[in-house]
Amino acid sequence: MTKKMVEKITNMDEDFAQWYTDVVTKAELVDYSSVRGSMIIRPYGYAIWERIKDALDTQIKETGHENVYMPLLIPESLLQKEKDHIEGFAPEVAWVTHGGDEKLAERLCIRPTSEVLFAEHYKNIIHSYRDLPKLYNQWANVIRWEKTTRPFLRTLEFLWQEGHTCHETEEDAHEETVKMLEVYAEICERLLAIPVVKGRKTEKEKFAGAKYTYTIESLMHDGKALQSGTSHNLGTGFAESFGIEFLNREGKLQPVHQTSWGFTTRIIGAMIMVHGDDKGLVLPPEVAPIQVLIVPIAQHKEGVLDAAYDLHHSLKSSVRIAIDASDKKPGWKFNESEMKGIPLRLEIGPKDIEEKKVVLVRRDTGEKIQVENEKIEAEISRLLKEIQENLYNKALGHRISKTAAAVTMDEFTGNLTKNGGFINAMWCGKQSCEDQIKEQTQATSRCIPFEQEQLSEVCVYCSEPADKMVVWAKAY
Amino acid sequence: MTKKMVEKITNMDEDFAQWYTDVVTKAELVDYSSVRGSMIIRPYGYAIWERIKDALDTQIKETGHENVYMPLLIPESLLQKEKDHIEGFAPEVAWVTHGGDEKLAERLCIRPTSEVLFAEHYKNIIHSYRDLPKLYNQWANVIRWEKTTRPFLRTLEFLWQEGHTCHETEEDAHEETVKMLEVYAEICERLLAIPVVKGRKTEKEKFAGAKYTYTIESLMHDGKALQSGTSHNLGTGFAESFGIEFLNREGKLQPVHQTSWGFTTRIIGAMIMVHGDDKGLVLPPEVAPIQVLIVPIAQHKEGVLDAAYDLHHSLKSSVRIAIDASDKKPGWKFNESEMKGIPLRLEIGPKDIEEKKVVLVRRDTGEKIQVENEKIEAEISRLLKEIQENLYNKALGHRISKTAAAVTMDEFTGNLTKNGGFINAMWCGKQSCEDQIKEQTQATSRCIPFEQEQLSEVCVYCSEPADKMVVWAKAY
Ligand SMILES: [Zn+2]
Ligand SMILES: [Zn+2]
Repeated sequence: MTKKMVEKITNMDEDFAQWYTDVVTKAELVDYSSVRGSMIIRPYGYAIWERIKDALDTQIKETGHENVYMPLLIPESLLQKEKDHIEGFAPEVAWVTHGGDEKLAERLCIRPTSEVLFAEHYKNIIHSYRDLPKLYNQWANVIRWEKTTRPFLRTLEFLWQEGHTCHETEEDAHEETVKMLEVYAEICERLLAIPVVKGRKTEKEKFAGAKYTYTIESLMHDGKALQSGTSHNLGTGFAESFGIEFLNREGKLQPVHQTSWGFTTRIIGAMIMVHGDDKGLVLPPEVAPIQVLIVPIAQHKEGVLDAAYDLHHSLKSSVRIAIDASDKKPGWKFNESEMKGIPLRLEIGPKDIEEKKVVLVRRDTGEKIQVENEKIEAEISRLLKEIQENLYNKALGHRISKTAAAVTMDEFTGNLTKNGGFINAMWCGKQSCEDQIKEQTQATSRCIPFEQEQLSEVCVYCSEPADKMVVWAKAY
Repeated sequence: MTKKMVEKITNMDEDFAQWYTDVVTKAELVDYSSVRGSMIIRPYGYAIWERIKDALDTQIKETGHENVYMPLLIPESLLQKEKDHIEGFAPEVAWVTHGGDEKLAERLCIRPTSEVLFAEHYKNIIHSYRDLPKLYNQWANVIRWEKTTRPFLRTLEFLWQEGHTCHETEEDAHEETVKMLEVYAEICERLLAIPVVKGRKTEKEKFAGAKYTYTIESLMHDGKALQSGTSHNLGTGFAESFGIEFLNREGKLQPVHQTSWGFTTRIIGAMIMVHGDDKGLVLPPEVAPIQVLIVPIAQHKEGVLDAAYDLHHSLKSSVRIAIDASDKKPGWKFNESEMKGIPLRLEIGPKDIEEKKVVLVRRDTGEKIQVENEKIEAEISRLLKEIQENLYNKALGHRISKTAAAVTMDEFTGNLTKNGGFINAMWCGKQSCEDQIKEQTQATSRCIPFEQEQLSEVCVYCSEPADKMVVWAKAY
């Protein structure tokens, strides 16, 4: 297995898709199985997910939410209760038709999302304004029957959290929708060093059954966009279909206002495609399962391994640190740690021991830094912060360099062809223009960003009056 | 909703099954849904599961295991690769036959357990003794198509962890099987205050596909047993069926030795049935989401609420504490906190404030203790420890009082009818005797306990020579 690790991977500018596949398999994040379109998340990949999950779960709880668990299976009749919702999801659900040897009277689908299950439960437990808000979240697996799949980015099954809340008023629901989008943006920017554009989806692109959908969009190395988290104001649609009503402060029955919001294992794909390079994965220190790898040099020489283990022992309470004391050559270990995206490598050999220093090597820049023994802990802490910031700034710089404004369709297609990336352009609000732009350019509307600019007075496509700037891009 | 909380629940000695249903619903641990046999785990129930999960996950990691995630769906052909395994599970799996509108070429089952998925992956990644051991675990949902279901105890879907490991030698696999059983026993005894009997399952009762199964068995308040965790030595059966081979230290190909072990949401049912009483749930402090509930007395009077919040503020870093400042009457709050099994109630009213003291009330004994202000923190800590111990000792006392030795079938049936509980009796090792005992008494062999006693020289059923003592009981 070790051999595979240091085989060359495909150059990212040559074939980005193949580079991605090489990285996810050779960095041992995933393995394939005989289940079409599903992935095995291996220990290194799952440890990354656990760090994301823990950070997000903490935020979800700190914002007042409680975790629950809903059933995996949904009866067909329940899924059908909200019309837009079933239309959106029916083509992509997996159906259970038999339990043991018995054919079921009613088909059950494996949840593609759990709005209808929450709705049914909320109807049972909400009666008065005193029961509101209900701020629930669940961590779960869901299945969507996709035709083409790629590890993390699009898989039949993925892991996620889905928040589902009920509120007294429209304003409360709106506030919640915004709040959770901000939580997602924080996780992306602070933990994963992925800069995001926040905005609202067009009617065409919003969630099936929502009043409106907010989204964070990020830009990959290859210039394609990736939807990185969504937060939906469901309005009273589900509440009306399911009869989730409460006695309000005036003693009248009214439907609750709902939201839902989700964040998935897909984000690991984004992190790989935003930060990775031709040597493999590059992990932001905040999310890296191992932040520092100690590689002993000439480890057969007396005192080297002892010194390496001493360092490991003295540092392990302040940093996630591991040691590679296997009998592989240092060169192999360097390549392996680079492939796995470990932020810092710490080299220690006989000469270093003599000179009371070690060498730290940054994964993001390749820079080598000699550090005296008494300064190691402080220097590691400083460097990890610097790497985290550098990755964010690099990604932001890349996004800025790949964002262009277009006032005409010539500029639109010209920029998109030449540079890829985000195209900012004005839009009249008609879905026909959105459809035409997609057909002609393959770019979809990513969002109507919260931060608007008035680039011109008219729609980039139809030249009719336009007051909305939309971000367009080809997307994963 | 609040009203329901303090409605009387069924007396446990009148109708234990109804008492159980009352408690799980009225303490708001679960709700039913339109999905037959599945449950909604509500915030209070899920918070208990999170505490169990966190404690067990820590132990699993400290014993060197790594978490992974395997697909939910298993192709029929893959499930069929190990003969005993498919025979055991085929009657109780749910089958997916359609994805969207398309009929699948091969049926997929929803995992009832994941041995075959791990086996397939292990075949891919294990080549040499250097790749061993592989110590993997996953937290997942599984489905078993049960006919009769009850919340936590038996549900179509449940949550669990399943460990799957590969080893070089039979001894290593044996050691792992024992080690993980010990981890489960610790979680039961230390965290959940449930005493367990450790032992080995008979051939009849072992896991489908295992060489042997170790189990921990606990005894419920009504005298019925509950299997609380199992650890299987799989031997080389799966390795041979799947071709999981490695080059050993002598350079020869050989199959790996495997184990698997699982612990489920079922244990919450055990905890309820071991500790609960006619007032509702009784939670061991270690696992209680709320350990202390502050109930202000005459909270409309000046200073009471302030004092209550001050207490909450000063104690919240050392104990899981909440305050009920709602406008319900104290009596309601007392009943509610008892129904929910909160270990300690802290009452504070005008007179207490004047006298610089509070009243603590134990859920397990009902005892009221006056505590001076400066001793509150220490006293809470002391009492929580005492309650934890008391619950364990009470449960152990109950088990001892409900355990009888039987040398003849008359004693066996007499004790079982009169007292329920565990019957210790000698067994010759023939399955026919085991079958007959089950048919005549409805008691099944729970295990061959590690701690053996030679109660007589002959089998309780057939009077042939016997050197194994078996624990028998009616079981959940
Ligand atoms: Zn237009
Ligand atoms: Zn016998």
